Order: sequence, then structure tokens, then C-alpha cells
Amino acid sequence: MSIEKYMDDKLKEECGVFGIYNYQGNDVARSIYYGLLSLQHRGQESAGIAVCSTEGPLGNISYHKDMGLVSEVFHEAELSNLKGNIGIGHVRYSTTGESCAKNAQPLVLNYLKGTLSLVHNGNITNAKPLRQCLQKEGAIFHTTTDSEVIAYHIAKERTNKSCVEDAILETARKLKGGFALIVMSPRKLIGVRDPLGLKPLCLGIQNGNYILASESCALASVNAEFIRDIKPGEMIIITKDGIKSDYSLCQKERAHCIFEYIYFARPDSTLDEINVYDARIRAGQALFHSYPIDADMVTGVPDSGLVAAIGYAKASGIPFSLAFQKNNYIGRTFIKPTQDERESAVHLKLNVLEKSVNGKRIVLIDDSIVRGTTIKSLITMLKSAGAIEVHVRICSPPFLYPCYYGTDVPVSSQLIASCHSSEEICQKIGADSLGYMKIEDLSQMTQDLPLCKACFDNHYPV
Amino acid sequence: MSIEKYMDDKLKEECGVFGIYNYQGNDVARSIYYGLLSLQHRGQESAGIAVCSTEGPLGNISYHKDMGLVSEVFHEAELSNLKGNIGIGHVRYSTTGESCAKNAQPLVLNYLKGTLSLVHNGNITNAKPLRQCLQKEGAIFHTTTDSEVIAYHIAKERTNKSCVEDAILETARKLKGGFALIVMSPRKLIGVRDPLGLKPLCLGIQNGNYILASESCALASVNAEFIRDIKPGEMIIITKDGIKSDYSLCQKERAHCIFEYIYFARPDSTLDEINVYDARIRAGQALFHSYPIDADMVTGVPDSGLVAAIGYAKASGIPFSLAFQKNNYIGRTFIKPTQDERESAVHLKLNVLEKSVNGKRIVLIDDSIVRGTTIKSLITMLKSAGAIEVHVRICSPPFLYPCYYGTDVPVSSQLIASCHSSEEICQKIGADSLGYMKIEDLSQMTQDLPLCKACFDNHYPV
Amino acid sequence: MSIEKYMDDKLKEECGVFGIYNYQGNDVARSIYYGLLSLQHRGQESAGIAVCSTEGPLGNISYHKDMGLVSEVFHEAELSNLKGNIGIGHVRYSTTGESCAKNAQPLVLNYLKGTLSLVHNGNITNAKPLRQCLQKEGAIFHTTTDSEVIAYHIAKERTNKSCVEDAILETARKLKGGFALIVMSPRKLIGVRDPLGLKPLCLGIQNGNYILASESCALASVNAEFIRDIKPGEMIIITKDGIKSDYSLCQKERAHCIFEYIYFARPDSTLDEINVYDARIRAGQALFHSYPIDADMVTGVPDSGLVAAIGYAKASGIPFSLAFQKNNYIGRTFIKPTQDERESAVHLKLNVLEKSVNGKRIVLIDDSIVRGTTIKSLITMLKSAGAIEVHVRICSPPFLYPCYYGTDVPVSSQLIASCHSSEEICQKIGADSLGYMKIEDLSQMTQDLPLCKACFDNHYPV
Amino acid sequence: MSIEKYMDDKLKEECGVFGIYNYQGNDVARSIYYGLLSLQHRGQESAGIAVCSTEGPLGNISYHKDMGLVSEVFHEAELSNLKGNIGIGHVRYSTTGESCAKNAQPLVLNYLKGTLSLVHNGNITNAKPLRQCLQKEGAIFHTTTDSEVIAYHIAKERTNKSCVEDAILETARKLKGGFALIVMSPRKLIGVRDPLGLKPLCLGIQNGNYILASESCALASVNAEFIRDIKPGEMIIITKDGIKSDYSLCQKERAHCIFEYIYFARPDSTLDEINVYDARIRAGQALFHSYPIDADMVTGVPDSGLVAAIGYAKASGIPFSLAFQKNNYIGRTFIKPTQDERESAVHLKLNVLEKSVNGKRIVLIDDSIVRGTTIKSLITMLKSAGAIEVHVRICSPPFLYPCYYGTDVPVSSQLIASCHSSEEICQKIGADSLGYMKIEDLSQMTQDLPLCKACFDNHYPV
Repeated sequence: MSIEKYMDDKLKEECGVFGIYNYQGNDVARSIYYGLLSLQHRGQESAGIAVCSTEGPLGNISYHKDMGLVSEVFHEAELSNLKGNIGIGHVRYSTTGESCAKNAQPLVLNYLKGTLSLVHNGNITNAKPLRQCLQKEGAIFHTTTDSEVIAYHIAKERTNKSCVEDAILETARKLKGGFALIVMSPRKLIGVRDPLGLKPLCLGIQNGNYILASESCALASVNAEFIRDIKPGEMIIITKDGIKSDYSLCQKERAHCIFEYIYFARPDSTLDEINVYDARIRAGQALFHSYPIDADMVTGVPDSGLVAAIGYAKASGIPFSLAFQKNNYIGRTFIKPTQDERESAVHLKLNVLEKSVNGKRIVLIDDSIVRGTTIKSLITMLKSAGAIEVHVRICSPPFLYPCYYGTDVPVSSQLIASCHSSEEICQKIGADSLGYMKIEDLSQMTQDLPLCKACFDNHYPV
Repeated sequence: MSIEKYMDDKLKEECGVFGIYNYQGNDVARSIYYGLLSLQHRGQESAGIAVCSTEGPLGNISYHKDMGLVSEVFHEAELSNLKGNIGIGHVRYSTTGESCAKNAQPLVLNYLKGTLSLVHNGNITNAKPLRQCLQKEGAIFHTTTDSEVIAYHIAKERTNKSCVEDAILETARKLKGGFALIVMSPRKLIGVRDPLGLKPLCLGIQNGNYILASESCALASVNAEFIRDIKPGEMIIITKDGIKSDYSLCQKERAHCIFEYIYFARPDSTLDEINVYDARIRAGQALFHSYPIDADMVTGVPDSGLVAAIGYAKASGIPFSLAFQKNNYIGRTFIKPTQDERESAVHLKLNVLEKSVNGKRIVLIDDSIVRGTTIKSLITMLKSAGAIEVHVRICSPPFLYPCYYGTDVPVSSQLIASCHSSEEICQKIGADSLGYMKIEDLSQMTQDLPLCKACFDNHYPV
Repeated sequence: MSIEKYMDDKLKEECGVFGIYNYQGNDVARSIYYGLLSLQHRGQESAGIAVCSTEGPLGNISYHKDMGLVSEVFHEAELSNLKGNIGIGHVRYSTTGESCAKNAQPLVLNYLKGTLSLVHNGNITNAKPLRQCLQKEGAIFHTTTDSEVIAYHIAKERTNKSCVEDAILETARKLKGGFALIVMSPRKLIGVRDPLGLKPLCLGIQNGNYILASESCALASVNAEFIRDIKPGEMIIITKDGIKSDYSLCQKERAHCIFEYIYFARPDSTLDEINVYDARIRAGQALFHSYPIDADMVTGVPDSGLVAAIGYAKASGIPFSLAFQKNNYIGRTFIKPTQDERESAVHLKLNVLEKSVNGKRIVLIDDSIVRGTTIKSLITMLKSAGAIEVHVRICSPPFLYPCYYGTDVPVSSQLIASCHSSEEICQKIGADSLGYMKIEDLSQMTQDLPLCKACFDNHYPV
Repeated sequence: MSIEKYMDDKLKEECGVFGIYNYQGNDVARSIYYGLLSLQHRGQESAGIAVCSTEGPLGNISYHKDMGLVSEVFHEAELSNLKGNIGIGHVRYSTTGESCAKNAQPLVLNYLKGTLSLVHNGNITNAKPLRQCLQKEGAIFHTTTDSEVIAYHIAKERTNKSCVEDAILETARKLKGGFALIVMSPRKLIGVRDPLGLKPLCLGIQNGNYILASESCALASVNAEFIRDIKPGEMIIITKDGIKSDYSLCQKERAHCIFEYIYFARPDSTLDEINVYDARIRAGQALFHSYPIDADMVTGVPDSGLVAAIGYAKASGIPFSLAFQKNNYIGRTFIKPTQDERESAVHLKLNVLEKSVNGKRIVLIDDSIVRGTTIKSLITMLKSAGAIEVHVRICSPPFLYPCYYGTDVPVSSQLIASCHSSEEICQKIGADSLGYMKIEDLSQMTQDLPLCKACFDNHYPV
């Protein structure tokens, strides 16, 4: 298996967002930079920051964005040019729109009522009709992103409303799908979350200054305290007078994306009152209760399977150990092995710890199986290193259906579970047994949080 | 604590070396590239590759080297310009010599007998007198590195010897200190290891082609098989006729660097027949036997303390768990927080998993304590997150003495152990108990392998 | 005088445009690249190319644009990614809009009727009301350029018209000011010129393929033949069926920018049937007839004053000679001297040829005087080198009024002529005599071509 | 003709050198930067600066060098890192040694007696035996340049001499060929010129501080006054106590390179008391007297033929005019046209001024003919533009023999004059008449200065 396939054999999240309002009038670009570094796992394709001064002339926005990691896009020179005490930032992995510089966020616009900047995580399922509708009214698009559709809609609504909040609210009312937005007007920072709560967004405070972020782990990086999650459907408005909220879009039904807990979010984040570390521990425990096995060690595929493996170990009493050494220096820009070199490729990223696994019956935990290519390769490596048995336990049910809310699930024909039974998959990947998380155990994992698990059960919310 | 201090609060290894002879006449630059990626943990300052064709005109060496990570220094364009079926590569962290482009390796030279390329890991304790001696004879140096001293000595000896091997041998005879060298002459690849075996070097084979590498983990990355360690004092000569060895420098005394096992080497490497993973497991076990404690969880400081923590968990029966989330996107080039931002700094690299540690009595394993700043900060983080007790166990005895063989130990005044008792350190770092590995347990850890542990006991080999 | 001031002491043109339709289906990006290289004197801040295939799926536009010179923005990699047989290109010096990457052209848009790309040279005097009008109808702007206003207007009109030509025509009808536009729709290349003919645009043919370019010198660079100027007010439509024109915007009044002949255009270009070289020769001749003087040599300030100097020499019989050596390696990116180093600064760009000027009475020709700082410095240099007399002759009347059509004239207070008489200026710059071109001689220079000379006489066309 | 050939169809000079000693203790890097900008015409491949403080600890040299133009290699960051009040700089076009980063100068070395930095213009004809001799004594070379041979020789001699001056003198005594050297020892700046005076070097003073430079035009760029040429064979030593000279290598025979006057040097430089502008004027006059012709205009190939054209115009009374427009934006890095695009290629660099030449009988002056490809192409352009006759006059005799002193003359088979008579060349290039400067007129051009004109007459000095 080529390393490219290994790296492709994962679901992709699209974005991380971050916003901050500094009441002391200090520049916020550096804080946004650190916040984005902590959200880098949510998107490695492009990064951007836009800032504005609430004291200066209206609408004087500075911004910088480009393709690359946060640390590649921003250096001292770029940060020091970004003067302003409110700002927003974004890291992106593209699901819709091409992967190129012009699609990087924040999006910064001028319209009748002034300037508008926006960062967006999520996917709007009715973006196409909204876009066409805007085009019919004369809108002209520079990019192929959902985010431009949202921004244009806000601008359009703003012409009939007395304030930008109302325009955002009216826009959010029309958006279908999952979204966590932060809009910066010249004097305000406004966060909105989709009514189902598909995409996460939380509020923190640092020395009296409010922060919005996709995940709570970003708060720690700027020494901020977690206050609370933004409620699904809530719009939070941060101004010089403090914060206030509008709950008019809130509804009863909620559907938090299960994959945030399984794979996307960092274990040190808490989303909608469920801690990710805890959830993964419970996932491992549930996997043991559903699929107990006699074995010598429990291990996880680094890094996403490790916490669940500790959970499985706890529940089973089988000791946890490490089976693979990860190479942290293999980044986006390294030269991929060619077809000829393919056998050695996966070793570049993960190498087996032979002494740990030799002669052992192993329980191997991974977050999910997409194409099945990676797990197959890892099992081969374990067995070549002397593992006697490899029992695979997966923290999610089989992937069967597409996601319309911003997660990049491959087409059905590439999903191994769409055309193979669990038994067949077990055989194809060379495992001695295979246990997928039962769909009914997901609610235990997230403690009855209302979930979107459409990729497993075809029940799409909305 | 600033992140800069956190990153500084580790010992530094100086280099990784890699060499390959391809008998099919194929270009080797890509294999060297992958080998260096797997040795990147041994040095992140500069990288370089030199290649040569054994069939072409004598001494036509191509090379490229620069400051930066392997993936930053080499792209398709650079690799495709490096044509040749024998080659050597190097990653560097500088201990001697300034950190700048001119000191990057391989060193490529022209002298009376032709061309000579060289990569070097280690430190020559008599480099200064050797350098002066060469200077007195008229030698002119372009760099401030030991490697240039070695190369010049080889070139000088070569004028009196019938072959480059003899010149290398004569040179190696005069070198004091630790070294693992790979020399490329137009038709030969020659590896030498210091008689004490301070620095590691091993031999592998890939499709009939011989490979030399600092660690066996680099063999896996190019799908090669491990053959054996180069013996301390051995010189191995790889030519078109295969391999042969000279053992005339071998001696009875050996002194393998204990820090390769404790910290430098990757756990998936085996050095001098001792597997690093195994050694660290035994270290953890020994720490338990010396310092048993009643606790709720065992954890390690990522990444170097994790394996020993698993060993401690095994021996004690206390479950292993993770306590910290590491940010893998914090690299060399990120913008360091300023003094003002310092409190949040260490969170950028490591954030505590609050739910994992809250209410727990924790055993925390780390490889070593240098200044003590990092461990202190981590203990504070654990306690702030609700840890009830933090018992620190260290896989090495207290650092007291400088290393002259290539490890960058800070001056004594910066070593916390040099002026404080274990009890004082325990108090200063805020731990509930502190246990350093006992010096007599080191031999168990490495199964009676003869060791250099001068940094702990002041007994320098040679 | 600092070099920065020297470099600032010139009027700035805003752009050069280039378009090509290849009927053989060959890629045109390289031809556009060479065309832009030949128009580089019209703008050095940013460069861009957009291409499209008339055979492929509708609206599949590739483009690349960035800050920098043509040779800095484009390399083989960028050019080879630009596949398509029709295309447009642009070089820019910004007069309106900030100088940053997002304002670089071509502008590429998506709207109801498909895609639209546009390059623009000129300045729209009613851009602000048009912009506000579009904003009132909901338009949202990403840039601060006139070009976006034009493009949005075309897109808006297109919704009511059956073809893009009609939309462009309707838009052009509303634009005031100077403009030379090239619009690329998926199947057509359309050029338009403002009815007054303020900005130049010409048509050429290369192997059966039509080319539009700001100046005829760009045709030579791609081995094309000059066909004719686009008429003021003409819209030319290039399709697979050949070319056709619409003249409905043509009007009687014309007003070609006099500064194209004096300074902007290259002497090897012919604009509106007046050759630039010829015009400058006549300018020099006219200057002699108005201000004859007895002297030993005639010279010009490199490069723009040289041709007129040859004209003066011809008319007067005084021999032409060179007085200054220019350093062609002083580009945009060189490090400017500080205040302390200022006295030597102008020598970096121009150094006096002492042997040529020593002991001579000199006639020195320059194209214009803006602030007067450069000419003063050059006269000082000449006198220091031994020139006995320096008689300055300027190819334009005194600058007194702003330009609204795309030329960047400094504010009145910085124009030396706005507050000083010719005699005062002569004294301030240290000349022995000073003669500005008489306004009535301009028509002789351009052979009765109807001119815009509002910057001299305050008679604005329109 | 391709532009590549056009650009190749010129002789290449190898280097420019610059050195400065600041007695006020100020940093000199910026002055060196400006000096190198003014010497950029002497080499565009690499640039470098080394500085040292005469007050600081001995031998603490900072340097930076890389491939590229001066303005590409140095930015504020690089300059501000170069702290020191004495320094040397270099621009390079490689004649010997490969064209790559490691061969860039200054060369900075450490040896028994301390540090040594060196910049060098010229070519040492006995470099090979000197190199071999040094190699036999054990010298080890890092580069393939003559400069390293010189530096090593100085270092070797220094071990037997009481001061670096004596070592330089002893070395210079052994060097054959042409050289202008500047050596920087920790406390001294020492310039040496070859006894024949093949390569130029002059002394200037700026605010009491001494400067050495290849050409006097570099003095103007830093506002320095020209003092005098360094004498052929002179060694000048600049120390804290001022300047002193050693003349022991001076000899009667001199042989200044004629090509400095014909082509290499800037017209605003004076070398060995002959001003370059004057020399070229005289060259043009001599060409008229040897080859008078009835014509309508005299012109020169930009830029090197222009001054001589003015000389021809003066002598003949035929008016000077411009025939070509040069594109100053065609630099090293632009994308060369392919074979298919070749016909348009030369137009990119030079385009004909049709109106200037149409219907004219033209005298066209160029500095030299190497392959003849450029001049042929230019004549074709002139005739296509309507020139009735083109009479070519060349400021040098036919090239027939190689240069061993640092000028890169192509091999004989590529020199059009080596296998064709003047009449044949005239016909091949399509000229109506052709006149090469007569060898006996060269002394008039340079006013009986003793010359090396071996490339014309095969009489090599030494």
C-alpha cells in the first residue's frame, strides 16, 4: 500500500474557526495564531487571519491567508502587519470548492453597509439553490465555496435589516446543513451554530476577553477559560458592551456529529458537555463488552485509536501497550514513494515495535475503517513481526452512507463496508476477529447526547 | 515556562548517518531520503545527501545540503539531480561548530588522491590538538566541525597509504571519543565505529544492496533487512565485490552510550543487540521495583516517557493511561510566545487530558531531568487539572557530569541535579515523590551491555 | 536626494493588457507571457494570466496572478498549468485600489450566465457612483478596484441581454473616463476602448490568430503583425468565426492621452497612427525652435529623454551625446539607502559620464518635471563633473492639474509648477535656462491628433 | 535566433571585487552592497560579502554568499547580520569552476595563523600545477576555483612569514595570469594586482575611509573620491595606521586587458588613467577614419555600442540616432523561447525603431563579433524595417585566439572570424560593408597604454 493511500484512508474534516475580541485594545493576531495552531488537526490545507480595530475608522480590515500550515503561512512579518483588537481565523481542509489560494478563508467583503469578514466550518446542503437564487438576483461569485454563498446572503439581508445580527439570523434561518460561523463586522464578533448542532463552537474567556473556537483545546493554547458551548441554533453577539445571545433559531431536535468524538476532535476538547477523551474511553469499554476476547495486549492505531485502546484495556484487564512507532516528521510536503517503492511506504509513517508484539495475541483498536487499506497493512506488519493473533475493534459502526454536512466520506464504491459483510472484511484485512461498534452503543459513548449518525444508519436529520 | 525553554530542556543528539551501495546501478538518492526521514529524530538542523556513480568517471560526486528538515531541504528537483548508485546522507543537530549552512554534511573534498565524502555522528575529544596539528602542517579549514578534522586526517594519511581504507584506519586509530563515520570514495563505501562503541551503526541489506545506518529503524523505512551491528572498532568496506571488515581497532573495553536507550534512539530500533523498546520497558519495571507506590494510573511524558510508563504499569499492575495531548504541528519554525504570553506557552506543545487525570494519584515517567523546568510545568498542569498526587519516576540517574562524546549536556550550573539533592528537586518541581533510576539498575535495563554512563558517575571510558 | 524620491519623481501609468485567440487550438499562455514582458514598462507591481479552452467544457478558466514582475510571477510550472487557446494577461501599477495580491488582474468571476474574465487599463471617473449603485442593488465587492465595478456591471447587464457583447456595450455606455478592456467569455475575446480614445488598444495577427494589446511593441515580441488600432468607442469581438466590430459608441470627439507619447509608451510603439519615436523626435525639434541655445552637446535623461534629445540635436545641429550611465540592475527589490546615505543615492541609478560633459555647455532634455527633485540632482551632478552650462528642455508643458483617467499625478502641492513660475523653477533646479514645451506645440508633436492635455490646460474632455 | 544564443553571443567577464576599511568603526556591509550593485555588470551569477571587526576578538568573520544577483542575495536581514568595520565583497560570473553555491566568494578560511578571507577577479594560468603542488603537500580542496588555490598558497606561505602581507607577496610572485585580489585578515585589508595589470583595481576614499574596487564607477555609488589606480604588481596594505604599498612585484612590461575598454567596464569608469567613455569615443572615431562611408545615420547596438557610435558620428558628421529599443525587464530568470518560438525571440530583448531606420543608410557599431548570430539578426531586423544599407563597424579586431586571463572566449570553432575572412563574414551577416577595428588603432584608442590583445594577435604577455 502506498503512503498516499494510507494518508487518504481517513475521513477529512473541513475546518477550524477561531475569533477573539480584546477589550484592552491589544492586537489579537498572535492569539489567533496560537488558537489556529491548536486547531490545525481540523485542516492543513490553508490558514488565514483577518483583524480589525473597533476604535479605528469603520471597516479597515487587514488580512492574510494562503495555502499551507499555520506555521508556514504566518511568520513574524505577517503577524505584525495584522493590527486590530478583534479578529477571526481559519484552518481549512476543503470539502467543497477547489483546493486553491483563492478559496482560503477568512472571506473579506465590501458591500452597501460596509465590510464583512467570515470564517466557516461545515457544509450547507442547500448551497446550490441558494447560490443560484443569488445569481439570479445578480450575485457574482469569485470562489466556489459555500462560505461565499453565506456571506452574500448576509450582505443581501443586511440591506433590509437594521443591524448585521438580524441579517445573519435571517440567513442562518435559510441555511440547511451544518455550520459554525464567525462573522466579523467592524465593531462586532458574531458566532452562529446550526440548529442541529452538527458543527461545534464554544465560548471562552481570557483576561476578560471573549473567545469563540471550534474546540475547547484552542482555549487552553491561549490560556483562556472555557465558559460554555454555543447552543445549537444560538447566535452570540460580542460587542464592546459584552455578550448577548439570540436563541430564536433553537429547536428541540439536535444532532451532534458523532465523528467529532470518534476521530475529528482532540481528546483534550469537550464538545457539548461530552469530553472527547471520556467518550473514547467509553467506546473502548463498549467494544470490550460487545466483543470480549482473550488476548495478551491491547493497542491502538496512533494517534486516534490510542484512547479507546486504553478504555478497552481498562474494561478487559488486558494490559495496554504500544505496537507502532509513528514518524512525526512525515508532513504534507514529503516526497511520496513511487509504485515501485510501495512496500516500504507505510513503514515511513508507522513502524511496528517488534519486541512489543512478537508472540502476542493482540487487540488492535482503530477509529474507523474507510477503504480498509491501512488496517490491512498494519495487520500484515503485526503478523510479520510475530503477532499470533490480531483482533480488530473499531470505534464506529460500518460506514455506509455519505455525509452531507461537511465530512468528506468517499463514494460508496470505495467504502469497504458498502459491499462486504463484517466477516468478509475481517477476512480481507487478515484479522482474526473484527468487531465494529454497535450502533446502539454510540449513545452510551456520548451519554445519550442526540447524535447525527447518518453515515451509519441513513437517518439524516433535518 | 516558555515553550523555548520547554524545547531546550532536553539533551541533544548530534547526528544520524546513512549510506547505501546499489549493485543494480540504480540511483540511491531516494532511498537515502527515506532513510534520513527515519533518522530525523537524531537531528533537525540540517540535512544532506552526496551520491556518486561507481561506473562513471572517478570522483564525480553530486551533493546537496542545507539547513532545515529533510522534507524542507529535498524536493523532487533536488533528488532528481542526484545521480549515482552509491551515496551517503546526514541529518544534523550541531554540538560542535556553529549552526549554519556551511557546517551541514556530507563534507565533500578534493585532494591528491581524488575525492572524498564523509558523514559523521559523534564527537572527537582530541579534535582540537588534531586540528592544530593539521594546521601546523598547513591544513586550511573551511568549517569549525570535527568532521573536517577527520576528513583532512584521512586525506593526509591517504598520501602514505595504498588505499583509502588504510588511511581511514590510521585516522580512526588516532581519534578519541565517539564516532560513527561513513566515508564515500569514488568506488567504495566505508563505515567505521569508534572502538568503545559509543555511537551506533548497523548493517542492513535490501534486495542484495548493503546499507549502513545509525539505527535499525532506518532499514525498515527502505524495506531492508537488519543484518548486524557494526562492531565497536570495526571498519566495514563495501565494494563491488561485496563486504569485508577490518577488526584491528577492536578492543576489549566497550562503552555504549546509555542515552541512546533512554532517549535518543527510536523504540523500534535495536542497537548492539539490545532493543530500545525492551530496554525502556525494563527501565519502567526497575523504577517500580525501586520506587513502588500506590497510585491510580501510570503515564509518561510524550513521547519519550511512554514506553517506560508501560513497563512501570506492567510491573505494578497499575493501569497505564494518557495524561497529555501533544500538538504535532509545533515545529522548528513556529513563532515562539513572548515573555508576556509565557504562561500559555507549554500548552501549545502539550495539553493535559483533564478527564484522564482528575482525581487521580498519578505515576509520571520521564526519561531524564535536565533543568527541571519542563517537569515542573507538567506537574503544575496535572495538579491544576485535579490530580491528587504526582509521583515522578525518571528513567535515568541524576545528570551530574558533562558528556565529551557528542551529547549536548548543559553546563553544570544549569543541571538541577548538580546543586540539589533528590529531595530538594522533588520539592522544587512540586512532585509528591521522586525516584531516579538507580545507577546499578542501568545494567539490568540494557542486560549487562557495557555502558558509558559518565554523565552520571564521572567514569569516562578511554 | 534619496533614490526613493528619484524613483517617485515620475508619473505612473496603471496597466498593460494583452489578449489572444489561437485558432489552431494551441495553448496561448506562453505568448501572453512574452506579450506581458513587452508591456512590463506599463506596470511592475503585479502580473496575471487567465486562459480558457474554446473547445472544452464551458467556463473552465485557469488563471494565475500575483505581486511582482512578469518573470517573478511566472515560471515554467505556472505557465504549463495554464491550458487553453484563448487568454488574457495584465501587468499593473495601481492607481486606484490598494497595492496587494487580491487586486491583481485578470479578474475571474462566476455569475448567472457563466464565467467572465477581464483585464483593464484606465480609470473610470464615475466608478464610485456606479459602485454605490451596484451595492444598492446588492453587489458585494472583494476588491477596491474599478475593474470589479466594470465586471459586475457587465454581469448585471448580461442578465437582460442575449449575449455578452451587448452587456459589455451597455456597460461601456455608462462608463466615464478612460479604459481599454479585454473581456474573455468562454468562447469569445472582446476588446473595448473608451469613446475618447484616452487609453490605447491595438489589433495584431500572428499566423492567423488575433491579438489585442495595449501597445504595438507587444506584437513584435510574439512575432505578430500590426493590423490597426481599435477605434475609440469600438468594441471588437473575436470568435471562432473571426472578428467583427460594433461602432455604436464611437463619437466625434476624441482625446488621446498626450502622456503616452511623452513618457508612457515605448518608442517602438505606434498608437493611433502616431509613432511614439517620431513624436518624440518632433518634440525635440519643437523645443529647439521654441528655445534655441548655443551649446556644445545635447543629451537626454535616460531612457525617456533620449529620443527627444536626438530630435533637438537634429534640429539644432548640436551633436548628441550621452551624459549619464544607467544601472540596469537597480530594481524594485533593492535596499534603498537611508537618510544618512542619501547623497550617494542617485548615483546608484544614474552616474554622470564626466569625460563626456566636462567643459561643455549642455542641453539636457527630460520628458517632464513633477517634483523637480530628480532634475535638480542631475544638474548638480553635471556641474560637479565640469559642465559649464546646463540648459534644460522639457518635452511637456508644466504640470498643473490632476488626471482623472488613470495617470497618477501627485497632489498639486507636490507639483513644482503649481506654485512656481518657470523662472523660479529654473533657479530652484540650478539650470542656466529652462524651456517647457509650449502647449500649442503639442499638436505638432502628435500631428494634430486630438489630445487630452487636461493636466496642462485644465480642459477635461467628456 | 534564440534569445539564449543572443545572450550567449557575448564575451563573459568573471568578477568584480570591492573592499572597505571604516576608521569610525561603522558597519560597512551596506556600503559593500552598494558597491557591488555598481559592479553587477561584471558578474550576475553569485554575490557575497564578508565583514570583520578590527576592534573585536581576532578572526570573528561574518559572511553571506549565494547564487543570484546582489539584490536577490541580500535583503535587510542579511545585511544587518553582517557586523564589522572592514569587509570585502564579490560578484561572480564563473569562468573556471562550476557555477554553484559552493564556489561563490568571498572565500573564508581558518588556518594556523587565524582567519583569511579573499575575493578574486581573474584567472591564474598556472593554477593547475599550483593546485597539484599544494595537493602533494596535503592540501584538501572544497571547491574547483582558482581562488582557493591562491588562498591556500597564502596560508601556506604565512607559516614561514612574519606577516600576512609577506605571504601574499610570496604567493603573488608565483601566480601567473591576471588577478585583482582583496584579502581580509582580521586587522588588515590588502589589495594586490597582477604585475601586467591585466585586471583592474583602484583606490578611493570616502570620509577618510579607504576603498578598493574593480572599477571607479563603484566609488561614485558610495560617494567616494577616486584616488588612483593600484599599480600593476603593487600590493596595497590598509591598516589602522593608514595605507602603505609594496612595489617589489612591479615590472616594466604591462599588458592591460583591451576588452575592459571595449566591452567589460562601464563607460563612467576610468581604468589605468584611461577613461572608458573616452576610449570608446576614440574607437568610433578610428573606425570612421579607417572605414568612412556615406550614410544617413550612425547607431550602436545597445548598450555597449552606443558610445563608439557617438564617436563615429562626431568624426563623420553623420547624425547619431537610436535604432533599437531595449527591454530592461529581460533578466536571468525569464523563460526562454523554445525552438518553435525562435523567430520572435530576439525581439524580446531588442526591438527595432522602425521610424528611425526606415529608408536610411545606416552605420551600425558593435563592440565585437563572437559567433555572429546577434549581429546577423539585428541586420535582418533593420532591413525588414526598411533600412537601405547597413554598414557594420566593430570596435575590436577579429577574435581569433583564446584568453587565458579570465575572459570566457568560446572555442575557436565557434568564433566566426576563426574560419571566415572579413568579406565572408560581411556576407554571412548580411551587411553592406564590414569594418573591424585595425589592430594598430587600438593603441590610439587607449592612448598608447600597454595592452594585452592576445585574443587578436596571439601575442600573450608573461
